[in-house]
Amino acid sequence: MVKNLNNEQKQVKNWFFDLRNILVKKIENIDKSKFTFTDWLHSGKGGGTMGKINGNIIEKGGVNISTVSGKFSENIRSKIPGTEKNPSYWATGISVVLHPLSPLLPSIHFNSRYLNTEKSWFGGGMDITPSNEFDKEKKVFHKKLKFICDKHDPSYYLHHKKWCDDYFFLKHRNEPRGIGGIFFDHLNTGDFKNDFEYIIDIGNFFSTYVNDLIIKYKDIKWTEQQKEIQLLKRGRYVEFNLLYDRGTKFGIETGGNTDAILMSMPPNAKWK
Amino acid sequence: MVKNLNNEQKQVKNWFFDLRNILVKKIENIDKSKFTFTDWLHSGKGGGTMGKINGNIIEKGGVNISTVSGKFSENIRSKIPGTEKNPSYWATGISVVLHPLSPLLPSIHFNSRYLNTEKSWFGGGMDITPSNEFDKEKKVFHKKLKFICDKHDPSYYLHHKKWCDDYFFLKHRNEPRGIGGIFFDHLNTGDFKNDFEYIIDIGNFFSTYVNDLIIKYKDIKWTEQQKEIQLLKRGRYVEFNLLYDRGTKFGIETGGNTDAILMSMPPNAKWK
Repeated sequence: MVKNLNNEQKQVKNWFFDLRNILVKKIENIDKSKFTFTDWLHSGKGGGTMGKINGNIIEKGGVNISTVSGKFSENIRSKIPGTEKNPSYWATGISVVLHPLSPLLPSIHFNSRYLNTEKSWFGGGMDITPSNEFDKEKKVFHKKLKFICDKHDPSYYLHHKKWCDDYFFLKHRNEPRGIGGIFFDHLNTGDFKNDFEYIIDIGNFFSTYVNDLIIKYKDIKWTEQQKEIQLLKRGRYVEFNLLYDRGTKFGIETGGNTDAILMSMPPNAKWK
Repeated sequence: MVKNLNNEQKQVKNWFFDLRNILVKKIENIDKSKFTFTDWLHSGKGGGTMGKINGNIIEKGGVNISTVSGKFSENIRSKIPGTEKNPSYWATGISVVLHPLSPLLPSIHFNSRYLNTEKSWFGGGMDITPSNEFDKEKKVFHKKLKFICDKHDPSYYLHHKKWCDDYFFLKHRNEPRGIGGIFFDHLNTGDFKNDFEYIIDIGNFFSTYVNDLIIKYKDIKWTEQQKEIQLLKRGRYVEFNLLYDRGTKFGIETGGNTDAILMSMPPNAKWK
C-alpha cells in the first residue's frame, strides 16, 4: 500500500472512496443488481478496486478507484508538469462509465483525479453520450453544470465546457462523441480548499444527476430501431476511447491494469 | 488521377486491380450477394475504390484498392525511408478484411502495397483470426505459406512469419490477435521482378485459400456459445486495429478516407 499520505492526499483519497460507495449504492438500488469488486496491484506502488456491474438497467458499467505511486518513464515524463527534476508521482482517482441497456438513456462518463509530482493538481470531468435526440436533457444538464461551476469561478463553465467539447471529438468522423459536459486538467488555483470543493460538488452533482436521469427513463419502452442506432453509436464510443482517450493510452502505455482501463468499453457495438 | 506512372508502377497497380476483381468475383459467387463500390479522392492526388459486402456468409467485408500520391508531413516523413531530401510519395495498394458470420470461420486479413519515395519497396501480408481452436487449419495455412515463401527465398517464411507474430500481438492483453501468417515491409532485394512475383504469388494463394476455406466451413452449423466467443474475439480485433494497427493510425493521421480505413471493423463486437 501507499503509506505516509499528507493531509490533502488523505482527504481526496477518502472522498473518492466515499463517492464510489455513494454511487455504487445508488446504482445497485435502482438496478436491483450488485457490483462485483476486484482489487488490482499497480506495477509501482498501490493499486485499485474495479467495481463492475452487468445489470438490468446498466447493461455494463464500471466504477473504479485507485491510488498509485511510482516514477514516470522518460517519454511520458516530458508531458507531465513538475517532473523536470524528479519523475516521482502519486495519484488517486475515481472513474465511472455506465452503458445503460435502454437506448433512451445515454452512456455516462465521469472521472476525477488528484495528481502529485513536484506540483499538484486536480483533473476530471463528466460527459454524456446519448444515441438519440436529447436536446431537452442537454439543456438541463448544462444548466445544472453551469450552476455548480459558477459557485467556484464564473469562468469555469465556459472554459471547462469548451475543453470537453474539444476533447471528446472524433476528428476522423468530424463528430462530437456526445453532448458534452465539463472537462479540465492541471487545476490548481493555489487554494486547495476551493479546488477540492469544486471536485466534491461535481461528484455530488454527478451522483444525483445520474440517479434522477436513470429513474426518469428506465421504464420507457424503446424500439429495435433505437437499439440499432445505440449500437452504432457505441461503435463510435469504442473508436474514441481506443484512438484518442488519453487515460486509455496512458494506462496501456504505462502497463496499467487492462481490465480496469478497458472497463469503459460498451457491452456490445456495431459497425455498418 | 495520378498520371505518368513508370512501368513498375503500372504493373503493380494493374495487378492489384486484377486481384481485386478476382477476389470480388470469388466472394460474390460463394456468398450469393454483391459488393457495393464507392470511389473516394485522396487529399493529395489519386484516390481509391472501397468495395463492401454485407453478405450471407461474409457478414461484413471490404476489398479496397487505392493509388495515391502526395507529400508526407514532417513528423511522418522521419519514419519513412527515402524521404530525407524529398517528402514526395506514390503508393498503390490492396487491402482485404472479411468477417464471416459463422464463428467456425476466422476473420481474414490480407494486404499488399507498393510504395515509392526516393526508394521503392513492397509491403503486406496476410493473417487469420479464428475464434475457435483452429489447430488443423493453422498447420495447413502455415505449410502452404511456407511453400510460397520458399519459392522466392528460403529465409522469407521464418522471417515474415515472425514479423507477423510480433506485429499482430495485443500487448495490453498479452494475447496474439490470431494464428499468424506472414507480414513484411520495405521489401526490395534489388530484383523488382522476383519481389513482384512474390507479391503476385501471395495474392494468388490468398484468393484460392480464402475460397477453399469458406467453402469448407460455410454450411457447418454453429452454436450460440461459439457465436458469443466470436463476438468477444471481435472485441479484441477492434482493440488491435484501433490501438496498434499502423495502417489505421497512418490513415487517420494523414486524413485518409475514414470509411475505407475503418472498413476493417467487424459488424459487431462484445466486451464482458
